Order: sequence, then structure tokens, then C-alpha cells
Amino acid sequence: MSLSASFNLKIRLPSICYKPASNLIPALPSSLSITNSQQYECPAFLFPPANQSVAAIVFGDGSHSRLYPLTKRRAEGAIPISGNYRLIDAVVSNCINSSITKIYALTQFNSTSLNSHLSRAYAGACLGKEGFVEVIAAYQSPEDQDWFQGTADAIRRCLWVLEEYPVVEFLVLPGYHLYKMDYQKIIEAHRSSKADITVSVLSSSREEDLGFGIFKVNAQSQVINFRENPEMDSLKSMSVKNSVKFDDFLLHNFPSMGIYVFNKNIMGQLLTEYFPFANDLNSEVIPGAISVGMKICAYRFDGYWEDIRSIGAYYRANMECTRKANNAYSFYAIDSPVYTLPRNLPPTLITDAVITDSVIGDGCILSKCTVDGSVLGMRTRVGEGAIIEDSVIMGSDTYQTNNVQNGAGEERGLCNPVGIGEGSHIRKAIIDKNARIGQNVQIINRDNVQEANKEESGYIITEGIVIILRSAAIQDESII
Amino acid sequence: MSLSASFNLKIRLPSICYKPASNLIPALPSSLSITNSQQYECPAFLFPPANQSVAAIVFGDGSHSRLYPLTKRRAEGAIPISGNYRLIDAVVSNCINSSITKIYALTQFNSTSLNSHLSRAYAGACLGKEGFVEVIAAYQSPEDQDWFQGTADAIRRCLWVLEEYPVVEFLVLPGYHLYKMDYQKIIEAHRSSKADITVSVLSSSREEDLGFGIFKVNAQSQVINFRENPEMDSLKSMSVKNSVKFDDFLLHNFPSMGIYVFNKNIMGQLLTEYFPFANDLNSEVIPGAISVGMKICAYRFDGYWEDIRSIGAYYRANMECTRKANNAYSFYAIDSPVYTLPRNLPPTLITDAVITDSVIGDGCILSKCTVDGSVLGMRTRVGEGAIIEDSVIMGSDTYQTNNVQNGAGEERGLCNPVGIGEGSHIRKAIIDKNARIGQNVQIINRDNVQEANKEESGYIITEGIVIILRSAAIQDESII
Amino acid sequence: MSLSASFNLKIRLPSICYKPASNLIPALPSSLSITNSQQYECPAFLFPPANQSVAAIVFGDGSHSRLYPLTKRRAEGAIPISGNYRLIDAVVSNCINSSITKIYALTQFNSTSLNSHLSRAYAGACLGKEGFVEVIAAYQSPEDQDWFQGTADAIRRCLWVLEEYPVVEFLVLPGYHLYKMDYQKIIEAHRSSKADITVSVLSSSREEDLGFGIFKVNAQSQVINFRENPEMDSLKSMSVKNSVKFDDFLLHNFPSMGIYVFNKNIMGQLLTEYFPFANDLNSEVIPGAISVGMKICAYRFDGYWEDIRSIGAYYRANMECTRKANNAYSFYAIDSPVYTLPRNLPPTLITDAVITDSVIGDGCILSKCTVDGSVLGMRTRVGEGAIIEDSVIMGSDTYQTNNVQNGAGEERGLCNPVGIGEGSHIRKAIIDKNARIGQNVQIINRDNVQEANKEESGYIITEGIVIILRSAAIQDESII
Amino acid sequence: MSLSASFNLKIRLPSICYKPASNLIPALPSSLSITNSQQYECPAFLFPPANQSVAAIVFGDGSHSRLYPLTKRRAEGAIPISGNYRLIDAVVSNCINSSITKIYALTQFNSTSLNSHLSRAYAGACLGKEGFVEVIAAYQSPEDQDWFQGTADAIRRCLWVLEEYPVVEFLVLPGYHLYKMDYQKIIEAHRSSKADITVSVLSSSREEDLGFGIFKVNAQSQVINFRENPEMDSLKSMSVKNSVKFDDFLLHNFPSMGIYVFNKNIMGQLLTEYFPFANDLNSEVIPGAISVGMKICAYRFDGYWEDIRSIGAYYRANMECTRKANNAYSFYAIDSPVYTLPRNLPPTLITDAVITDSVIGDGCILSKCTVDGSVLGMRTRVGEGAIIEDSVIMGSDTYQTNNVQNGAGEERGLCNPVGIGEGSHIRKAIIDKNARIGQNVQIINRDNVQEANKEESGYIITEGIVIILRSAAIQDESII
Repeated sequence: MSLSASFNLKIRLPSICYKPASNLIPALPSSLSITNSQQYECPAFLFPPANQSVAAIVFGDGSHSRLYPLTKRRAEGAIPISGNYRLIDAVVSNCINSSITKIYALTQFNSTSLNSHLSRAYAGACLGKEGFVEVIAAYQSPEDQDWFQGTADAIRRCLWVLEEYPVVEFLVLPGYHLYKMDYQKIIEAHRSSKADITVSVLSSSREEDLGFGIFKVNAQSQVINFRENPEMDSLKSMSVKNSVKFDDFLLHNFPSMGIYVFNKNIMGQLLTEYFPFANDLNSEVIPGAISVGMKICAYRFDGYWEDIRSIGAYYRANMECTRKANNAYSFYAIDSPVYTLPRNLPPTLITDAVITDSVIGDGCILSKCTVDGSVLGMRTRVGEGAIIEDSVIMGSDTYQTNNVQNGAGEERGLCNPVGIGEGSHIRKAIIDKNARIGQNVQIINRDNVQEANKEESGYIITEGIVIILRSAAIQDESII
Repeated sequence: MSLSASFNLKIRLPSICYKPASNLIPALPSSLSITNSQQYECPAFLFPPANQSVAAIVFGDGSHSRLYPLTKRRAEGAIPISGNYRLIDAVVSNCINSSITKIYALTQFNSTSLNSHLSRAYAGACLGKEGFVEVIAAYQSPEDQDWFQGTADAIRRCLWVLEEYPVVEFLVLPGYHLYKMDYQKIIEAHRSSKADITVSVLSSSREEDLGFGIFKVNAQSQVINFRENPEMDSLKSMSVKNSVKFDDFLLHNFPSMGIYVFNKNIMGQLLTEYFPFANDLNSEVIPGAISVGMKICAYRFDGYWEDIRSIGAYYRANMECTRKANNAYSFYAIDSPVYTLPRNLPPTLITDAVITDSVIGDGCILSKCTVDGSVLGMRTRVGEGAIIEDSVIMGSDTYQTNNVQNGAGEERGLCNPVGIGEGSHIRKAIIDKNARIGQNVQIINRDNVQEANKEESGYIITEGIVIILRSAAIQDESII
Repeated sequence: MSLSASFNLKIRLPSICYKPASNLIPALPSSLSITNSQQYECPAFLFPPANQSVAAIVFGDGSHSRLYPLTKRRAEGAIPISGNYRLIDAVVSNCINSSITKIYALTQFNSTSLNSHLSRAYAGACLGKEGFVEVIAAYQSPEDQDWFQGTADAIRRCLWVLEEYPVVEFLVLPGYHLYKMDYQKIIEAHRSSKADITVSVLSSSREEDLGFGIFKVNAQSQVINFRENPEMDSLKSMSVKNSVKFDDFLLHNFPSMGIYVFNKNIMGQLLTEYFPFANDLNSEVIPGAISVGMKICAYRFDGYWEDIRSIGAYYRANMECTRKANNAYSFYAIDSPVYTLPRNLPPTLITDAVITDSVIGDGCILSKCTVDGSVLGMRTRVGEGAIIEDSVIMGSDTYQTNNVQNGAGEERGLCNPVGIGEGSHIRKAIIDKNARIGQNVQIINRDNVQEANKEESGYIITEGIVIILRSAAIQDESII
Repeated sequence: MSLSASFNLKIRLPSICYKPASNLIPALPSSLSITNSQQYECPAFLFPPANQSVAAIVFGDGSHSRLYPLTKRRAEGAIPISGNYRLIDAVVSNCINSSITKIYALTQFNSTSLNSHLSRAYAGACLGKEGFVEVIAAYQSPEDQDWFQGTADAIRRCLWVLEEYPVVEFLVLPGYHLYKMDYQKIIEAHRSSKADITVSVLSSSREEDLGFGIFKVNAQSQVINFRENPEMDSLKSMSVKNSVKFDDFLLHNFPSMGIYVFNKNIMGQLLTEYFPFANDLNSEVIPGAISVGMKICAYRFDGYWEDIRSIGAYYRANMECTRKANNAYSFYAIDSPVYTLPRNLPPTLITDAVITDSVIGDGCILSKCTVDGSVLGMRTRVGEGAIIEDSVIMGSDTYQTNNVQNGAGEERGLCNPVGIGEGSHIRKAIIDKNARIGQNVQIINRDNVQEANKEESGYIITEGIVIILRSAAIQDESII
């Protein structure tokens, strides 16, 4: 009762300071900017404030099969990206920068990797009092012995945990997207429109962004239809030059980002009363909610957004980080910092290197070498004379002791040290953690293979990109 | 090579300071004491030191069905005990006090509870550099889509994680036992005897301690046989007065504690080469290891040990904590402190209480009441005139706001505040977390029922003990 | 520029939701409540938000001499209070609950105690990203070799640190007051009135509350005069029954609380340009600011406030905590929790105790004893037959080992264990940390002494209250 | 009693495993190596173990005047070194790697800097249970209103704190030395020789290493004399080629390192009974202890050791870090890691750089530039066309927002962004934190000045090294 009263109060506020309708479709011209420049601008502050009234539900894994072998031992969210980070850090940092500090991470696929990262990275001070990142791995209970059967099933089975705190809305987020968004703005739009559910959609669309389906939206920015499997052709024709501005969109069709705001009790009703057997949020619950007449609004987003659902997308996102004039995703913005596991590594030691358009993670050891257009992860060791081009080197989990590193006698060649060996040449490749690339190795996709599974030899080729497996050893003089 | 050299070196040391053989069976008269009085006594320090050479593998759940309803939402290890603790704290604290700081907790049953507790309680300073408690919940991977099929299967599937650090031995520990043990001593005995596996056994046995089976041991303290399902009768006849001293044991039969030290490579061999399809460590791998001729030694333990595998055992362990002359398990010993999640609760506020033989957790609020022989958990609220006898009250997760606590008008009775209401009488009961016991309620097992399932009414009776379910509400004037 | 713009924006907001003027004097009828009931009420949220725009400057020590011997080894802020807390926790918790998370604690008197407490208690999660409690002990530098000469001098010398973050206001707080206040409200009043400085004053006054001087305020709630040494008599006559309601106050005189909001640049101007040699904020800078015509507004506060500046005030504040119907200062309110150093102590173990109107800190061990109207600190041990009345027992820093605790032979009596011995009787006393009270000791102020310094015997009497010194040992059978 | 018993026990152990006498002078040929390769070698483990029996007392400041202006706002121990560290991290990391986890840091000169660093860097997990780094800034107390008058006075006044834990020895360490040492070995030598005090001395000596005086040692490695002010000339003649091997030393004279092991009660006796007015440990207490006949033994150390007591020494130590074949001080050794404040900065972004023999701290942003033989601290920004040679750039505390960084209109030149501007040339300089070097600036010591104080212009020249002050702004086109 008092809650709704305060909401009424809230509703009257925005006319002065808030512009809650600005991103509702298509009422107003676009003025959304992804810079979270909250400081000393008209703020995105909410009442009730986000840290008390919103809980985020982050999914740690999705279409993992297309990211194999990076997902052999990892959930998608735990894949290293841009030298110092894990993929899920982007979404968790968005939450923290949006003052959403109650974060549940649901996962069942290679959950150890995600649990290990999240529980150590976010145990510290950045979440404030009452904040937490709680990992919920799939579990057996007296009531249910099965795995999570999908996103809807996962939430349904965890509702008793998720409802522990008296929040007002759930914010559902895939954990393997790279983007910056002030979630307070979608929450605000949700509250202003008094919607049951608000979905986030892309203003402009590229072909590869249609994985979460398409919403059809009316003039009041309300969702009237959802198509899970859009006919690619018709869309392609719509998306001239692969990027069509929203306002030109004839039929008001917008790609979904898989991001939803649910009123807490609507979530409960949908999962336990209306659709108690639905497994998937995207393809079952949302269309169901439309069908039963719930009010679903669309909130459009027009910043950089990359859904890391393939090796190609992962590779491109890393390449994007290496450009100075990076308008895609800034790791250096002071008003929207990206958080991750704190480290205290030594500085990078460089003997003699020519480095262009690259990012170098903490604590690397680079001999006389050339690095161009590449990402080098933490503790990457590069031997003398090596050349690295257009590649992602994930680095190493530890430094090696000297005697191992130097090797000795006949063991040489059998067990090269972790890192890139002397005289080796790497081009357009992804070198997973702790891999041992020998001397004078060439990883250049000599034969221009597009797809190949050489897992027993330590590598896989996907979309023409060579991926060296985690901890794989590539012999001296090998050519790939 | 250098490793074995250092071991030889080590073997020559003990004649002066160590007494490595003292707990091997039956070579020497018993001199084992469970007090971990390492300070300024002949120490149990190891070379290589335990924090670098041993990893503990703790199982968070076991025979959970017999602990229902306490395990409805919790793994066994996460059950609250003795007011301020969770059950698994006992084993993790043993590890820390034994300088074993690489701890893996494997779990799949209600794993959220355990993960939440462990990741917050042991993220802090008590583990030192390179120490960790890493929770490994069952997970799906490209290689295996199934749940853990047993303890052996769980370890096998996690071997790639467990072998991350160059440890020498794995120490396998059930996480739901209450006891104090300096694990450095069993490691030392293991190293001295050059065993492949060392098992911990009980010196004296009670009928209820046979759950892990019986080892038959020869004069050289080597295990020669294992029986999983001992004939209870024959054992009963052996155990006169329910407690027989070890030395009188005719056939050198000792109950297993389910605690094992494995050489790391032996573990790998057993699980992947010898018995790649064995699911259970206890009933399959250990007998298998005997059958293939591995050297398995027994280490006997004669301190307090309680396997919390039934409601009765749980109840008794709590009751034991309330006695001042507690020789069972001390939470107050400065040389073997028990760790848990740190709190900053206010002090317990007592208006007018007569309290005998009880432990009172942090931040309780007690009105004019009587508490006898009971355990009161954190934030327990007891109303005026209430009487609590021989009971375990788990307490509450938060304080309530005043208006909820006072109730108002017709809502009274429908939703009592969390805690024990005015004038209520609780005897020989377990009141789970956040339960709301109304006014003038009597929970006294009036009809002396031994077993009853009244889950829909908010309680279950097991072994004559009434268990009020988590968050259950018991109406005013109810009599149970 | 953009800053003032946003301020104008802000100014227009309150008409709907904020009531910024409500505590300005005497414009509106009093509606201030000290409950920080931010949740789902009209919130006290600020723009720019408090955690980004306000830094608190807390003074850890003040009139320490009157609190001797409690301040023998401690800063005032580090004195234990109410069983589980240190005095400064009240003010730091106020800051945290007001979203002010940049906190500087300035101190030079026994600073170690304060530094040790604050750096451990607030290193953790409760402050959020960019939050900190930074202790600035007096220091020598190339520019200045002297101690801080007063509060103004301390701030002046630390300005280079304090100005590190781009805050808008400084909130100056004495660290040894016990009260709850939502500082966001005084900040809001300060911003609304566009004052240079805002001072917090008491609505009603007691004689003992005049330590910080008296402000004379005009009808526009602006300060027009300050008297440091009010004529007590005239004030006494004003304060009928020791507590006069604000509105009846004839001359608009209000006692200062020593709490100030300064615009950051005003602080800089006053300390470096106007009054570069002023040492004290209260008696020099504030009157100076009035004299140069700055705009100083008063914000009145009418909740519980206790300035712990004497043994009597300290004793009374503790006694207040023991009452259930405590309207003074609640440690149990969920919307304004009190933070402190987290602990993981075992529960309190009680053998047989009758306890009335008392608070019992964590991990006490109470034998058959009687406790009435008392505060027992952490790890307090009370022996059999002991009686404790109207006293503050601070408890102990560690548990003792058994052999020390039991004593042996002739050592008994020489070195009693820490705690209250068997059969002893304590009445109206303060027993400092780690004191060893022997058996059958009577600390009852038998001769009704008001003041006595028996430091060599281990105690001091002040205002009729016996204070046993830290770590003092009182022999068996002693009578004090 | 039991303590000495256990010591006897200990004394008999070494003959097998320990070589306690190996570094006593001059009994055995040198076999000391500074690699702390404890793993799987004959270990330096102590009984009682170091973490329980030894407390380290670290002095945070020393001869700070010679390090001005680096010490303008900092204690010596807080000076940034090698990109990612503070000077005191070396000594604290030595302690942690030697299992000494009770660390007191005594300081009074610019103590804030040290307190801020230590309390945040070592609050976390690396110290283990019961470990701490406690900063004791000089303080006033009822007993003493004065500053610390020297190292001996500081320890004397803090004895009540230092004696809190039942340690056996104090290890006294200057906090501004760069070296790696396993302190367990000097403790072990101390215990074996049953000395009252053990002093650490240098095996070989350079002229600049004589700041702590010279010990004369007899054939039993016992100290027989101490000279505070050695005649430089005689020593120079002794030290042929600036580095003389220990064994050739004719008169058994060894330079002191200022590192002492004191038995705890000996420390108490010396400071409170024998020499209650001595202020300095080095020049008063140690000679005094010799004079009263205490047993003082020497322990020689022959690894890299740099006493950072001048700008030149500081500069050289940084330059040493940039060499790959660094035999001086390794930040990359896995068995003796160097700890510091954890960070989560983005990776270094390099547009187009040629980098030789340099170390690059975390999160730098380098445009097209040349870096040779230099140390770049965290967040260093280098503009296009800049050249940095043989310099130490300390970096920046935060990233700047874009609008500030780009500047605008006439403000350019007045306030350059933090970092090294476009086209600037830096050679043999130290650029302190947050300095703003404009465009086309040349800091090359054009006139080859050796000493100059241009503090008002933002720099000082010492030993021919230009030092740009913290936060100084150097105009475009300036030439220094």
C-alpha cells in the first residue's frame, strides 16, 4: 500500500528532471547515450533506489557450443577477454555502475570457472553494504533432482532464493554480452510506463544480432508480437548496409537483446501460475506473457553491443579493444569502470619490442619481438624474435620457475615453457591460457583452412581462426 | 627425484622429535590427544609443509535424506549448529588449524546454501596467501552432461581442477562431522609409513559409528580387509556398553571415519586406470585398492567424533554444546578456534531471564523467559513468559521492523513475528530458521509421537523430536 | 558552471518530494524524526549523491582528560561501548547509513587504538566502491614538524589530502558522540539554503549539552551570534526541568553539537586566507566566519544525543543500552544498523544465570551468577556465585588457555584469570578490558567515595563510579 | 620452562637437516643464496614457527631529507618504485615470504601515506589467521606528549603494544631497503647461537653501504665492537674495486644492515632498565649492549641489497629493474613474490611504440612513442612523438575524463593533461605522480646542472637527475 503510494509520488517527479519516456518507442527522438555520465548531469537515480529495489539475475552460460573449445572447461561468462578481464565482468560492472548490487549468477555449465572468478573478484569492497554476487549453480534438492531445463526453469527453481530480499523488480541479463548500459534508465522507463515487463531492444540491427528474436512494437512503444526465428532474408533486405537506423524502420521490428525487467510478482505469476512448465524465458514465457495480455514495453538501446556467441564475435570484440579510437567499449572511462579480480602482478618487462595497436595485460615478459594488432593477456611471455599479429594471447596463470623455463637437455622440445617461443610467428590466432608454443613455430593458417578439428594436435580452426587449446603444447618448428 | 630425496631426509628426523608411529595400529600405546596444542609442544609440522603439499577435498553432503527437513533447502554441511556456526565450519576449521589451506568443497545437493556460506565466510584473511576454499558444484561440460554419480565420480571429474597445484597428497573429508583433529598428524603418519593410502579409524566404537564400514587391520597397522555392511549384531556384542576400548578389540576391527589420505598420483591411477567406472570412494575404490595390493595403513583417532547423519545425532551434538564440562567439542579453545562467517551483530539484550546450561548466539532479544538446556541461534527473539527446554532454536536471518513485529489488528495470528511468542512452551524441539511461533503455543510432543510428517502444518517429528520447518508459522494457542 | 545548473535543477525538485526547509529554524513545525526510515518513504536522497559529493572529517579525540583512565591507552573514539562496539562506530555508521562513504578520521591522541580498529573494521564491504575510512594521524612533514594545534589546524594541514576527491562539502563530526542522524538531511538543508556553513544544533537542551557553545539564530534560521562560554546560570534558568522544548526558547539560543557542513572552498578560504593562524574550529573559525559576514545556517536536531565527554556520561550511555524500551539509541534497527569490527566468536555459554535488564556481548562464559542492569563485553568470564549490578564489564581480548585459567598452587591469588572471580560482587563500576578480578572481591564503593585516584592499586573513582584499570589485577577478598 | 625444554629439543635437530651455523661468521664457507627456494629443499622452518614466535618492527622512514622532494608528502617507505610498488612492499613481502605475519610499522614522518598504503594493501588474505600489518603512527598519550625521539624511543613507547602477543623475538627492519632475504634463516642462526641479539651484516661492501656503521666480529662470529662513523678512507682502501669478498676481509669488519633480531625480554631490559634514555637503536642501544657484555652475533648476507637513502640510490634501483638479466631484485620469482596493493586496472593500450629495456606498469596509454631504459608507473599516459630515456615516470592516480584531457581553447597550456605531452623528450629524470608535462617539453638537463632547487618552477635537480614534483605542471615548449 505504502509502496504504491510512493510510486504515485514518484510518477509526478519526472516531468521536471527525469525524461523517462525518452527511450520508449517511438515517442521521442533518440537522445540516449551510452556514456554513464551520471556525475553532475541530470542523474538516473531511482526511487526506491536501485540497490534496494532491483535484483539482477545474470545467466553465466548460453550458446556455449559455438564457442568451443574456449568453453571446454569454462562457462561462457568466464572466458578471458581484453587481457585482464573475464567476459562476465562487463555485465557485473554495468550492474555496479548502475547501483544494482544484489546480483545472482545462475549457471550449470562448467560452473566452477564462473564461481571461482565471481566469488573472488566481487567479495571485496565494490558492492557496498547489503551487496553481493551470489552464484547459484544447478543443484539437486528433495523436490527436484534434475538440471535446470532452461532459463525459465532455472529462475523458477531458484525463486525461493531470489525472493529473499524485498525487491520490486528483477533485471534478467545474459552474462556474455559486451556493452555498457545504465540499467537505471530501463528501470525508470519500466516504472514510468507501468509495464509488467520491459524488454530492451536494439535501435539498429546487424544480421548477427538477431539471436534473441524480434519484437514488433506499436506507436505506444508496447510490444505486440514476438518472432523467435525471423526470416533472415526479409530482415537482410530491411537492414540496408547491415545497419539501419531505428526511425527508418518501417514495421517497428526490433531485435531483442535478451534483457528483461520483470515486476517481481509478475515473474512469480508467469512461472508458477500461467506457465508452470515453460523452460525458456525468451521463446516461451515472453510470448506467453504477450498472449495473456500483459503490458510489455520496449526500451531501445543504441550503443555498442556485442553478443559473444561465436568464435568470430569473440575474436572481433578483442580486436576492437586494440584500437585507440575505440568507440565500442571503453575500459578506461572513469565514470563507468570495469571491475574484475584484483591482482598484484609485477609490471610488464620489455627488452626490445615494437608494439602497434595492441593491449598488453599485467605482468608480461616480452623479449625482442614485434606485436601488432593483438591482445596479450596477463603474464604472457614472448620469446626473442617472435612476431605476433592480429591475435589474442590469453597468457598464463603463473610464472614458471627458471629451471622449468629453461628446460634442459633432451627434455627440450618435449616440454616447452608456457608462452610464445623464440622466433615463432602467430597470425590471426587465439592462444588459450597456459599454452606452450615452441621455437620457430608458425601459426598462420598456412593452408587457409576455415574449419578443422585437430583437438588431438592441440588446435581447432573456426571461421579461419586458429585456436590453440588451453595448456596445449605445440612442438618446435611446427607449422599450422 | 629431489622430492624423494627430501623425503628420505625427512624420514630420519622423527627419531628425535616426531613420533610418527604413535598412532599406527597397534604398535604403540595410545598417546593421542585431540587437543591441538601445537604451541610450544613438540609440533606437528611437516615437510613439505601442509599448506604447500596437501589439498583437502571436502564433501558437503552425504546421507541427507535422514536429516530432512533440515536439508530441504540446505546441504548437510550448511545446517546451523551451536548457535553461531554451520556444520561444515568444524571440518574447514580443522583444516585451517592444521595449516591445510587449499580446500575444495565438492557438492551437488542444495549447493547454493554451502556456496553462499563458504564463499563469504572464508574469503577473508584466515587462509593466508595461496589459501582458498573453492566450492565445486556439480556441473555439465562438453565431456559429461551428468550429475556426480558418487564421491569417486565427483573427484574423477574434478581431477583437472584438483591437480592445479603441485600438492603431494589429497586429504578426503566428509563435511558433516563434528570433531577436532590435527590432520598434520595423519599426514605425517602417512608419510612415515610410505603408504599409498591412509585411512582414519575410530579407536573405540559405538553402534552409530559404523556408517562408513569396518577395516580389519594387521599387527603392522596395515589394512587387510574392509566390510561395508558389518553384521550389526556381532558388532553390538563386541561393543560392550556401547563403547569398547580399542586395545581390547579382538579381531583388530576398526570403524572407518570416511577420512582418507591419498597420494596424489595414486588417486589419479585408481580413478582413471584401475577403476575408471567406480562411483563411490568408500565402497568401491578403497576395497579395490586393497584388492590390487596397494599399501593402505590405518591411523586411529580416539577423540570426540560425531557423524551428524540423523536428526538424533544432530540434536545430541547441539545438546552436548550446552554443557559447561564439555569434553566433546570446545568452541572456546584458543589453539584450535572454530571459524565461521564473521558478523557484527549487536549484543544480546535480556530483560529478565533465568538461563541454565544453554548457549546463546549473537544478538538475541530475550524478554522475561526461562531457557534451560537449549541452543539459541543468532537473533533469536523470545517473548515474555516463554519457556524453552532442551531445544535447538536456530534464530533468524534478520531483525524485523517494528510494525511487522508488533502486528496490528486482525493480522495478528495470521502472521506472527519471527521468534518464540509470549507464553509459549518449547520442549525437545528443533525450531528451524525464521520460524514464527505464536503466543501460548505448546511444542512439547504432547502425544509422545516418535515419527510424524505434518509438513503441511509446518512440522515433522523424528525420533520423538519435533522439528518446526524453516519459515513455518505456528498459530497462537497451538499444541503440538 | 554545469554544477550550478544542476543545482538550480535540484532546487526545483523539493516542492514535491523533499521538505528541505523543515528543519531550518524556526520556519516550520518540527517534523524531524531520527529514524532513518529511508525505505519506501520519501527519501533523503541528494543530488549530487552523498557518496560522491560529501567527505566526512571525523575527529577521533576530544576532551580526553575527563575520560581518564579509559583514555590511558585509547583515543576517545576507541573506547568500548555497549558490549560489542567502539564509540566511533556510532558516527561512522551514521555516515554509512547516510551514504557518505569518504571518511577521514583525524587523530593524534593514542591514535594507534583508533587506527587499529578503523582499518580493520571498515576495510570490508560496507563502504562500496570508492568508499574508505582513512585514518590521518598527526605527522611531521618537511613543512611542519609540530603536532596538530587544534581542529582547525588539523584540517588545514591535511587539506591537500582532503581535497583529493572532487567533493562539494565537508561534513565535520566529533567522533565520540552517541546518536543517530541522517546526515543527508543536513546536507540537503545546507544546499537548499545556499549557506556557506550549516551548523547542527539541539532542539532541546540539558545542562551537560553546552560544551560546544551556543548559537543565536534569527527568524530566517540564520546564525547571528556564537558564545563559547555560556553563562551556565542563565541557561539553567531557561532549561526548566533540564529539558526545554525548542519552540519555547525565547531568544533563539541553541546549543551547538559541534557538527558542521562547510562548502569545500569556504573551508579552504577560511583556513588559509581569512584565518590562517586559527587553531580551533569551534571557538575561532566559526565566530570568525560570522564576523566576516558568511552565511551560516542552523539545522536543528531533536533526537537522542549524548556527548560522551565524562565518565558519568559514558556510564549513563551504557546503562541506557540495557533498557528494553530504549528510546535512546537502538542497536537493533534494521534500517540504521551499527557497524563495527566483524567477529566470529562462539556463542555465549551460560551455566546458570539470572539476568535482568542487561546486554551480553558475544562469546561470554557465565557460571552460576546474577547479572542486573549491566553491560557485559565480549568474552566476559563470570565465576560462580558472582553478582554484577549496574556495571560495565568490557570483557577480554582473548580466551585464556586452561592451565593459566585454572592457576596452580601458590600462583593462585597472584595471577587470577581474566574476568570476574567466584563469589565477587560488582556494583556501579566500570571494569576495563582484560582486568583480573579475584575471588570474593567486592567492588561496591563501600565508603561511597566520589573521587579517588588509586591507580597504583588498579582503580580510580570518578563521580562515585569505580573504574578498574585495563589489565589490572584485584586480589582475592579485596573490598573497594 | 616448557619453552626452554622445547628449545633444547630443537637444538638437537639441526645436525641432520638444518645448517644453522652456515652463515655465522666465519665458521663455514659461504653457501648462502638469496633465492628463497623453500619448496622441496631443505627448509628454513623454525620451531616455534615464525608466524607465532616472531614479530617484525618495521621503520617506515629514515633519512628522508636526502630523498626530498620525493618525501615531501610521503614517508620513505611509501615512495613508488618499479612501476607497481611502494618501497616498503619489499620488506613486508620478505616478512610474508618468511612466514612472519605479525608486522608493526612505526612511523611519524608523513605517516598518512604509509598508513593509507599498508592498511589497504595488507588487509586481505596474504597474512593468514592472526597475521596483521599494524601501523603505529607517533601519538600523544597521557604519559608522553612528545614525538618519537628516535628508533629506540619509538620502540620503548610502543612496547605495551608490541608485547601484546607472546612472541619470542623481535625482528627490527628498516622499511626502505630493497633486497630479498629469508628472515627465518637469521632467526634460526640467532636461536642456534643462543645470542641475545643477532645483527645482519654485509659480506661484501661498497662505499655507499656504510650508513649503518661497521661491526668488528671475532672468529666465533660474535660482535666485539661497533663503529658508527667509520673512517671512510681506510674502508675505501680495503674495498678494492668497490666490492671485496667477505673471506678476504682482514680485520673482520662488516657493514651493518640495520637489521636486528632481539630476544623479546632483552629488548625490554635494554630499553627500560639499562638504557632508559637512549633514543637511537643503532648508535646507542647496540653499542650499549656490547658494553654490558651481552652476546651479540653477526649473520652475514651476501645478496643484492640497496639502501634507498638518496635520490641517486633510488634512481639506480629503478634502473636496475629495467634490465632483463636482472640479478639484483626479481619481481617475477614465484617462490618469493612481492606483494602490494591489488588493482583492477585495464590493460596497457599501445598505439605504436618502440620499447627497449623498460618496465611498464598497469594500465598505461602509450601513443606513438619511444621508451628506452625507463620505468613507467601505473596509468602513465605518453603523447604522440614523445621520447622517454633512462627515466622514472611514476604515473597517475586516476584516469582523466576526456574533456579535461583534451583541454579546450585558451585553457590549453595552462592546464595540460596529466602525463607526458606530445613531442616531449625526457632523459634521466624522475617524474613524480600526477605531473602534467606539456607538449614539446624537453627535460634533458640541458645545462648539465648537478644540484638546483627550482621548486617554484616545479622541479629540483639532484645528482644531475631532474625531479619533476608531484602534480607539477610544466608548460609547453619548456626546456629544462
